[in-house]
Amino acid sequence: MRILLVNPNMTVSMTEAMTTIARTVAEGRAEIVPLTATKGFPYIASRAEAQIAAGIVLEMIAQNLNGIDAVVIAAFGDPGLSGARELFDLPVVGMAEAAVMSAAMLGERFSVVTFSPLMTRWYADCVAGTGLSGRFTGVRTPVTREVDVCHVASDLRADLIALANVAVREDGADVVILGGAPLAGLAPEIASDVPAIVIDPIAAAVAQAITLSSLGAGFSGRACKPAAKSSVGLAGALSKIIAMEAAQ
Amino acid sequence: MRILLVNPNMTVSMTEAMTTIARTVAEGRAEIVPLTATKGFPYIASRAEAQIAAGIVLEMIAQNLNGIDAVVIAAFGDPGLSGARELFDLPVVGMAEAAVMSAAMLGERFSVVTFSPLMTRWYADCVAGTGLSGRFTGVRTPVTREVDVCHVASDLRADLIALANVAVREDGADVVILGGAPLAGLAPEIASDVPAIVIDPIAAAVAQAITLSSLGAGFSGRACKPAAKSSVGLAGALSKIIAMEAAQ
Amino acid sequence: MRILLVNPNMTVSMTEAMTTIARTVAEGRAEIVPLTATKGFPYIASRAEAQIAAGIVLEMIAQNLNGIDAVVIAAFGDPGLSGARELFDLPVVGMAEAAVMSAAMLGERFSVVTFSPLMTRWYADCVAGTGLSGRFTGVRTPVTREVDVCHVASDLRADLIALANVAVREDGADVVILGGAPLAGLAPEIASDVPAIVIDPIAAAVAQAITLSSLGAGFSGRACKPAAKSSVGLAGALSKIIAMEAAQ
Amino acid sequence: MRILLVNPNMTVSMTEAMTTIARTVAEGRAEIVPLTATKGFPYIASRAEAQIAAGIVLEMIAQNLNGIDAVVIAAFGDPGLSGARELFDLPVVGMAEAAVMSAAMLGERFSVVTFSPLMTRWYADCVAGTGLSGRFTGVRTPVTREVDVCHVASDLRADLIALANVAVREDGADVVILGGAPLAGLAPEIASDVPAIVIDPIAAAVAQAITLSSLGAGFSGRACKPAAKSSVGLAGALSKIIAMEAAQ
Amino acid sequence: MRILLVNPNMTVSMTEAMTTIARTVAEGRAEIVPLTATKGFPYIASRAEAQIAAGIVLEMIAQNLNGIDAVVIAAFGDPGLSGARELFDLPVVGMAEAAVMSAAMLGERFSVVTFSPLMTRWYADCVAGTGLSGRFTGVRTPVTREVDVCHVASDLRADLIALANVAVREDGADVVILGGAPLAGLAPEIASDVPAIVIDPIAAAVAQAITLSSLGAGFSGRACKPAAKSSVGLAGALSKIIAMEAAQ
Amino acid sequence: MRILLVNPNMTVSMTEAMTTIARTVAEGRAEIVPLTATKGFPYIASRAEAQIAAGIVLEMIAQNLNGIDAVVIAAFGDPGLSGARELFDLPVVGMAEAAVMSAAMLGERFSVVTFSPLMTRWYADCVAGTGLSGRFTGVRTPVTREVDVCHVASDLRADLIALANVAVREDGADVVILGGAPLAGLAPEIASDVPAIVIDPIAAAVAQAITLSSLGAGFSGRACKPAAKSSVGLAGALSKIIAMEAAQ
Repeated sequence: MRILLVNPNMTVSMTEAMTTIARTVAEGRAEIVPLTATKGFPYIASRAEAQIAAGIVLEMIAQNLNGIDAVVIAAFGDPGLSGARELFDLPVVGMAEAAVMSAAMLGERFSVVTFSPLMTRWYADCVAGTGLSGRFTGVRTPVTREVDVCHVASDLRADLIALANVAVREDGADVVILGGAPLAGLAPEIASDVPAIVIDPIAAAVAQAITLSSLGAGFSGRACKPAAKSSVGLAGALSKIIAMEAAQ
Repeated sequence: MRILLVNPNMTVSMTEAMTTIARTVAEGRAEIVPLTATKGFPYIASRAEAQIAAGIVLEMIAQNLNGIDAVVIAAFGDPGLSGARELFDLPVVGMAEAAVMSAAMLGERFSVVTFSPLMTRWYADCVAGTGLSGRFTGVRTPVTREVDVCHVASDLRADLIALANVAVREDGADVVILGGAPLAGLAPEIASDVPAIVIDPIAAAVAQAITLSSLGAGFSGRACKPAAKSSVGLAGALSKIIAMEAAQ
Repeated sequence: MRILLVNPNMTVSMTEAMTTIARTVAEGRAEIVPLTATKGFPYIASRAEAQIAAGIVLEMIAQNLNGIDAVVIAAFGDPGLSGARELFDLPVVGMAEAAVMSAAMLGERFSVVTFSPLMTRWYADCVAGTGLSGRFTGVRTPVTREVDVCHVASDLRADLIALANVAVREDGADVVILGGAPLAGLAPEIASDVPAIVIDPIAAAVAQAITLSSLGAGFSGRACKPAAKSSVGLAGALSKIIAMEAAQ
Repeated sequence: MRILLVNPNMTVSMTEAMTTIARTVAEGRAEIVPLTATKGFPYIASRAEAQIAAGIVLEMIAQNLNGIDAVVIAAFGDPGLSGARELFDLPVVGMAEAAVMSAAMLGERFSVVTFSPLMTRWYADCVAGTGLSGRFTGVRTPVTREVDVCHVASDLRADLIALANVAVREDGADVVILGGAPLAGLAPEIASDVPAIVIDPIAAAVAQAITLSSLGAGFSGRACKPAAKSSVGLAGALSKIIAMEAAQ
Repeated sequence: MRILLVNPNMTVSMTEAMTTIARTVAEGRAEIVPLTATKGFPYIASRAEAQIAAGIVLEMIAQNLNGIDAVVIAAFGDPGLSGARELFDLPVVGMAEAAVMSAAMLGERFSVVTFSPLMTRWYADCVAGTGLSGRFTGVRTPVTREVDVCHVASDLRADLIALANVAVREDGADVVILGGAPLAGLAPEIASDVPAIVIDPIAAAVAQAITLSSLGAGFSGRACKPAAKSSVGLAGALSKIIAMEAAQ
Repeated sequence: MRILLVNPNMTVSMTEAMTTIARTVAEGRAEIVPLTATKGFPYIASRAEAQIAAGIVLEMIAQNLNGIDAVVIAAFGDPGLSGARELFDLPVVGMAEAAVMSAAMLGERFSVVTFSPLMTRWYADCVAGTGLSGRFTGVRTPVTREVDVCHVASDLRADLIALANVAVREDGADVVILGGAPLAGLAPEIASDVPAIVIDPIAAAVAQAITLSSLGAGFSGRACKPAAKSSVGLAGALSKIIAMEAAQ
């Protein structure tokens, strides 16, 4: 099977780091097809940016559906996820949702540890959106807001380990999610320094994409699909899919 | 004061109908500046369409901010609302949110009556998003899915009156919201046929925009604004605002 | 239009301060008719006092309905609000509810800052009652319980600014409500010292009363009204209204 | 021990019916001191009436505290309950709350069956107020609104049995609460006709009053009591208690 | 009446301490029949242990039902409670549930104070299970995990008083529950050192068992009972009851 | 990798049916080791039975851990799940939880369709336990309670298809979970007759077990593990694991 890994951020080095992890998780089970946004932002970090990215994600998926069995949206806020699930007849997995759902099946209460306090409210809302706030112990971040997203995993490594330990000892988490694409790959490196299960969201998302595909669910006859629609100004592939909905 | 009324749907006749109501509500208090989307869809009716519309709404606002005191997003699903609140230094009001908040201050439990069952889940989620599900008695719609959105208010008038009465008698609502831009203007026409308060969302949104402006809240120093960001492929006005955030 | 501003507290200087603000907000749009309780308490500060005040508020409204278009209950706990909405055929607005609903339309998460820890639990319950706890970051107060409610806005000004900053920086609020009638008028004075939108509840309540009136909702045919009732020991005007309900 | 049974309704025959049941439950364990409101309404059936009754209940308790060990507020909406708990240094039990809490300890999911659809929303809110909505299957009532509250238990007996059976078979309740003072005494009469546990709220309230008294909890040093307050226009006994709070 | 007090812990001294309190509460109203587990654990302190204890509790009840009118499960996590309510035709009361429900009828917000941080998450989940999290201010414990459960009430007395005061002053509780069988009997000893109502869960459970019995609810015709089932490997008395269900 | 498939029901034909499906899902990725309970019940169908089964499940896992990489508890109510997660250092997946989490990642709102109304309340509680009630449209079942669990999938096939269609058309589900071990294998057979995604819980559970294992989470250092405990009367393997906890 082939998984389209859509990075809604424009930073190619992030896509590369996530692809490496994705390929490790998927080894022997799935091929990873990485894709980096060529419109939008270097790194999405607000609701406004995520709203703009949602439309870009839908276009990226529509243009690259050929031969694909499942899609991973590789940004922690899951931009475009609910729309993509309506439009495309295959499993679409969001990094945050997959991390949260996996955490809830591995332990009892999970924390999100990330690199900047600017993410706290948005990430907390992501968790609330999944419905699992009742098992969420909150977001822990360093106090400094300004970070270099390309080197944050190494720059803040010690802080993130310390924050994960606080999440376990003080907040009562037994699973820690390292939130945000810039932290991709850090989980296995620090796992032995944290007295809890540590989750890498991109690994969780790829594993969930494989799992959901393996269930063999049939998508084409779904009653919930939007009616066919004409549109103006959309990328051709996306416009075509939206115009075809009624045929299915 | 001047209120920008942004219709994210491309149907000009809807904008005109909503502008007429808006001007009645605002008479002597505010000038209405109507704007119809030139990209996107004739009528937004799914999450995917709303996600695409959100980016379009942010562009439309950015390009027309000059001399504006408040913004109304004139579509019931409030596309772009949370992002617009982050980016722009003035009150931004969504039609659904304004209708729901106003309903909650006029009575005890509110229903949404609309024209197609295709809207039910999305509109229920809109209400949930406001936090006021506890006072919501549900969505009532006709069973037929196919409608002409340009004539639905007159075509289904009798059905909508009947549904509003069911919402009051069986569901226990004492306020009925007529949901969706195609029903703009119907509320005062049928109010005397419904034993409850009937709300026109566009009227509510315009009135709330005036109210929120009158509070004189200062927007410019807000700590919650996103950091400045470079971007690619966005409309120039929106790109410029996103790049300037840090300066404020 | 004429708005009845009912202060359920017996302190005339509070009524005067709130009337000044109300008139500023309403200028050119509505006339303010202030009314101070002559029974009850100098300042309501507990559930027991609020329950007693609720009956007093219903009497005050019933006795002064003539020529009135909307009512503002000018105490943060909104005593009498749900009963008044059942009985009277016009918009009735509570100070806490209006502040909370307005805050939720101006930003994302709101805090209540007030002058005494004695108010914390009651005010938190007020917010819960509106259904918007999900967007509430909590109540912040000074540690000292004993205050002079007539001078608290000036006595504690520096403390309240500091608390509002804590609410923004630590709790993540982007809107701060200054809770309690004794703080009326303080919001615009300290707004520039707080990196968030600052709301004066009395201003919000008056603006919402004007807004809700402007919607032209018809109250008289409401199916939800209580059945007619005889009563003993109530003020005549209130007793008469309760006895007439069935006629409508 | 002596239990003050406060009927906030002015109908003496209801007090008598409830006293009979109360004495059966309390036999050998407590003396029942019945009290009927001499102000207010024959039968409370709306939020407005309940708000007015709350102040009357506080006065009734304050005037009759001498020699009393616990108080039962004998009306299903529990008017005055939260205020009474703040003011008086003994257990205060509400009929609805006691019925709901007892139901939750006897079975898994409870229904409220009552005599008029006018009560539905208010009673549902009473349950929500206790926090136990998650185990509540809803209110079931006859369709007719007009009833003679003095004879409703016998007039509607067959209907109420049928409704209780619907609550069990269709709604999944395994406990049925017969809500409202007019149904006092009906539970044991119809219990064998209902395949579930049937609860009489006045019996539950009296039993809970005895239980809570037996726990020997100390009330006098409570930190949560309101500060002392002067007041105008209150019954002397109530005014005195409110003025004394600080001394404790 | 006779109450079976089932201690799912194997520590006889705990049963004795709880029996002493139970007999004081029940004096003149009920006879206490104590029973200590002979399988399982000295002291249950995890979900796994509680799950194993649940089956043991069902066996203990089934084997000792003869002549019993009500059952108290005397461990704070209420192991076996929901199953026992399905199987046995009499009131079954759990220590945690009874404490929480009683607390909610005595005051406004309750805290649980206990002896070890190992209990925090489990006890918080117990409260959530009752539905009353909305009135719960959290669990307060000492930082040390290792304790001697047989002497913890005296060893940690000063700490527990201090924690209860923190729960009142900082968390806003007006009722404090001393959670866990090892603290049985401590509540009346420290009540005067805590500015709130202090609840002993075993006392609350016994009092509730008496109350629920006094309601005379009929259990035998319940529609909710499980169908008759054959079983293998269960204690004979339990196996017999499960096999008989259909006969009722 | 090797997955232990624990059937807490004693019916071997169910284990066989589930093993067939499990092997199809796991083909080439994992070996399935099936295990059928030899104590307990032919088919678990109540809370009491599930509580007894929980202890049996913990024993079955403890006795068969050797060489196992993940565990699936193959009964819809997930007996023993939370305890197993505390005790064992590998992923443990419950059939209901895995089905619900997978459904939430494949669509928007899910229904549970099952074969008997006796399951409705329990299955609804299972969903509530996962935290995902907000996306749950309810349980749909035939009206008949008595079924032959060994042939129910073929006997009721037409009814179950009809119920799944009702869940989609009337309740708004876009994913349907076929709940209960007796329906294992039916999902792919009826998928084309249902206009939604249809989920087989055992397939979902096996796929999730593989996914969670592939994340390489480290279990051994978890701070949340219970302290070591002595025990009496437990199966030796379980007793040994519980006694060893502290060593880790």
